[in-house]
Amino acid sequence: MAAAVEQAEKVKGTTYPNPPVGAVILDADGEIAGVGATEPPGGPHAEVLALRRAGERAAGGTAVVTLEPCNHVGRTPPCVDALLAAQIANVVFAVADPNPVAAGGAARLARAGVAVTAGVGADAVSGGPLREWLHKQRTGMPHVTWKFAASVDGRSAAADGTSRWITGEAARADVHRRRAIADAIVVGTGTVFADDPALTARRPDGSLTEHQPLRVVVGMREISPDATVLNDDSRTMVIRTRDPHEVVQALSDRTDVLVEGGPTLAGAFLRAGVIDRILAYVAPILLGGPITAIDDVGVTSIGQAHRWRFDGVHPVGPDVLLSLVRA
Amino acid sequence: MAAAVEQAEKVKGTTYPNPPVGAVILDADGEIAGVGATEPPGGPHAEVLALRRAGERAAGGTAVVTLEPCNHVGRTPPCVDALLAAQIANVVFAVADPNPVAAGGAARLARAGVAVTAGVGADAVSGGPLREWLHKQRTGMPHVTWKFAASVDGRSAAADGTSRWITGEAARADVHRRRAIADAIVVGTGTVFADDPALTARRPDGSLTEHQPLRVVVGMREISPDATVLNDDSRTMVIRTRDPHEVVQALSDRTDVLVEGGPTLAGAFLRAGVIDRILAYVAPILLGGPITAIDDVGVTSIGQAHRWRFDGVHPVGPDVLLSLVRA
Ligand SMILES: NC(=O)c1ccc[n+]([C@@H]2O[C@H](COP(=O)([O-])OP(=O)(O)OC[C@H]3O[C@@H](n4cnc5c(N)ncnc54)[C@H](OP(=O)(O)O)[C@@H]3O)[C@@H](O)[C@H]2O)c1
Ligand SMILES: NC(=O)c1ccc[n+]([C@@H]2O[C@H](COP(=O)([O-])OP(=O)(O)OC[C@H]3O[C@@H](n4cnc5c(N)ncnc54)[C@H](OP(=O)(O)O)[C@@H]3O)[C@@H](O)[C@H]2O)c1
Repeated sequence: MAAAVEQAEKVKGTTYPNPPVGAVILDADGEIAGVGATEPPGGPHAEVLALRRAGERAAGGTAVVTLEPCNHVGRTPPCVDALLAAQIANVVFAVADPNPVAAGGAARLARAGVAVTAGVGADAVSGGPLREWLHKQRTGMPHVTWKFAASVDGRSAAADGTSRWITGEAARADVHRRRAIADAIVVGTGTVFADDPALTARRPDGSLTEHQPLRVVVGMREISPDATVLNDDSRTMVIRTRDPHEVVQALSDRTDVLVEGGPTLAGAFLRAGVIDRILAYVAPILLGGPITAIDDVGVTSIGQAHRWRFDGVHPVGPDVLLSLVRA
Repeated sequence: MAAAVEQAEKVKGTTYPNPPVGAVILDADGEIAGVGATEPPGGPHAEVLALRRAGERAAGGTAVVTLEPCNHVGRTPPCVDALLAAQIANVVFAVADPNPVAAGGAARLARAGVAVTAGVGADAVSGGPLREWLHKQRTGMPHVTWKFAASVDGRSAAADGTSRWITGEAARADVHRRRAIADAIVVGTGTVFADDPALTARRPDGSLTEHQPLRVVVGMREISPDATVLNDDSRTMVIRTRDPHEVVQALSDRTDVLVEGGPTLAGAFLRAGVIDRILAYVAPILLGGPITAIDDVGVTSIGQAHRWRFDGVHPVGPDVLLSLVRA
C-alpha cells in the first residue's frame, strides 16, 4: 500500500475532478508487476494503467489500490471490468468510494469471486493523497489549508519587518511544491500591497511549474493594475469582500485551497471556522518583537482556545513542519 | 548501547558531582548478564554494579558503557581494576572521559589486552544523559536550559492572562520530571509576583519527588516573606541582580540549571548568550493576542536572528516538544 500511496502522491493536483489514486499489481508470486496513478481527466485510471504494465502477470495476482475500484462508466470504462478481465484474484484497497455513482466496485468484485480486503492503510490515504478530495466529496466544499512560516517564538518577521528568510530552502521548496498541486492560493489585499508577490508555483531554479494555481486576492481595497499578482503567469480572481464564507463559496468548484495570509486574513478565516488544516513551517530561530504570524483569532480566555490536533511533525531541512487538523 | 543509555537516563540528577553513567555486561555468548547505573556519591559506579550483577558470566564477555571507564581512586576504586578482575574481554564505550584525573582508562585496558572500542553511540550520549555533565567539564559553568510552554502561535497565555492549561498533562509531567533531575530552577521576581509558584518537582498525584532542585529568584525587588517559593519544600536562593552572568556565576557549583521564565528573564538570558538549550513544549492550539512566550531577544532585523538547531522533536501526549541547541 505504501507504494500505491507514493504513486497517488505523485499525481496529486493533476487529476481534478478525478481523485488522485495509486495502484500496484502484484503477480501470483507477490512480486510487483506494474504500478500506476490516475492520469489527467480522460486518461486511464490508476488500476488500468497498472494492469496494462503488468500484462499477463496480473492473472491470479493482487491489485493494491488507494481507493475502491470504480464501477461506473465515466469518460473511461469501469475499473472493475478491467480487473475482472485481467483475472485478478485479490483486491486490497484503503478507502471506500464515497461517491454513490462510482461506488459498488468492491461488492461487484466479491460477487465475481475476487477476494476483497478493505481499509488497509486507510488513515495514511484519507489523511494523505485523498484528504482534500474526500473532504470535497463529503462536504461539497473545498478543503482549506492555512500555511504559515514562523520562528520558534511565533514571529513572521523581525521588528523592522524583514523576513527573508526565516525558513530554509527546503521549506520554501516544499511550499512551492504544495502550491503546484493546489487549485487556488488565497491572500488578503494587505499582502499584495506590502509584498507585491507573484503567488506562482516555481521550481528551485525560478521557472514556473506546469500547473499553476488560481491566485485569489481578498479585500475591499482596489489593488494596482500593475500588481505582479495580475501578471500572465497564472489566472487571478479578485474577490471584493471581507467574508471568508463568501470566498470559500466562490471557490466551491475547487478541491484544494491554500490560504497564505497575511495575519489579518488568516485570523478572519480561523475565526470563521473555514480552515481545515494548518501547516506551520517552524524555523529554529528566535526573533521576538511585535510581528507575529497571527494576531487575533477571537480568543480572550484560555477556555476559548482553538483546539487542534497534531497529525504530523516532519523535519524539512533545518526546519520543522507541524501539521494540524481539527481536533 | 541503547540499554546503557537507558540506565544512565534513569539516574540523571542523582549522581552529582559524578556523571550519570549506564553500563551493560554481555556474557561471552552476547546475552545481557547485568546492567548498572551510577549510584549517588560514595556508592559504586555503573560498571561495578553491572559486573556485580553479572557475576561469573562477565568472564570473556563485553562491557558496554556510556563513558570511558575511570582509572582513578576517588571515593571508590578505579572501574578499570574491576573490569580487569572480572576478566572482561571487550569494552565498548561512547564518550571519552574529558576529566584528566579520571581519564586513561581506555589506554590501560588496551595495554592489559582488552579489545577497546570508543565512540559507539557518542552523539546519543553526549546529547543525552551526559550533556550537562560534559558541558560543565568543558566550560566549568553549569549547563543552562530555557524551558517554555506555548501555543503553536507562540503565546504563553490568552489575552486575559489565563494559561491553565496550554499544554496537556503529559507535558506538565515531563516538566516535573525535568525539575526533579535539575540542580536549580530560575525565575524572575515577576513570575513570583504574578503566579506565586512553588517551583518544586511533584509527581502527578501532587506529592514531592525525592530530589528537589534549588529554587532561584532573580531581580532587584524584594519578594514577600510569605511567597510560596520560600516554603520548606526545598531551598531557595534570592539573587538581587539583573545580570544573567552573575546568576550563572552564583550557580557555578551546579551542573544542570533550568530557566523557567517569565519572558523578561528569559529574554535577558538569551540576549546575554547564557542559554545552552531551549525546550519548547508546543500545544496544538491557537490563542492570538498580546501575551507571547518571549518578547525582546534583542533582534531588530532578520540578519540578527538568534539561529539555533533542532536536535530533537518529540510528541508528548497531544503536544510536541521541540529541543533546540546552539547552531
Ligand atoms: N509569515 C507568513 O507566512 C506570511 C504570509 C503572508 C503575508 N505575510 C505578511 O503579512 C503582512 C501583511 O499583513 P496583512 O494582515 O495586512 O495582510 P492580509 O491579511 O493579506 O491582508 C489584510 C487585508 O485583507 C482584507 N480582508 C479580507 N477579509 C478580511 C476580514 N474578514 N477582516 C479584515 N480584513 C479582511 C482587508 O483588506 P481591505 O482593507 O482591502 O478590505 C485587510 O486589510 C505582510 O508584511 C506580509 O509579508 C506573512
Ligand atoms: N509560559 C511559560 O512557560 C511561563 C513561565 C514563567 C512565567 N510565565 C508568565 O510570565 C509572567 C511574568 O512575566 P515577567 O516577565 O514579569 O516575569 P519574569 O521574567 O519572571 O520577571 C521579570 C523580572 O525579572 C527581573 N529581572 C531579572 N533580570 C532581569 C533583566 N536582565 N532585565 C529585566 N528584568 C530582570 C526584574 O525584576 P526586578 O524589577 O525585581 O529587578 C523583572 O521585573 C507571568 O504572568 C507568568 O505566568 C510564563
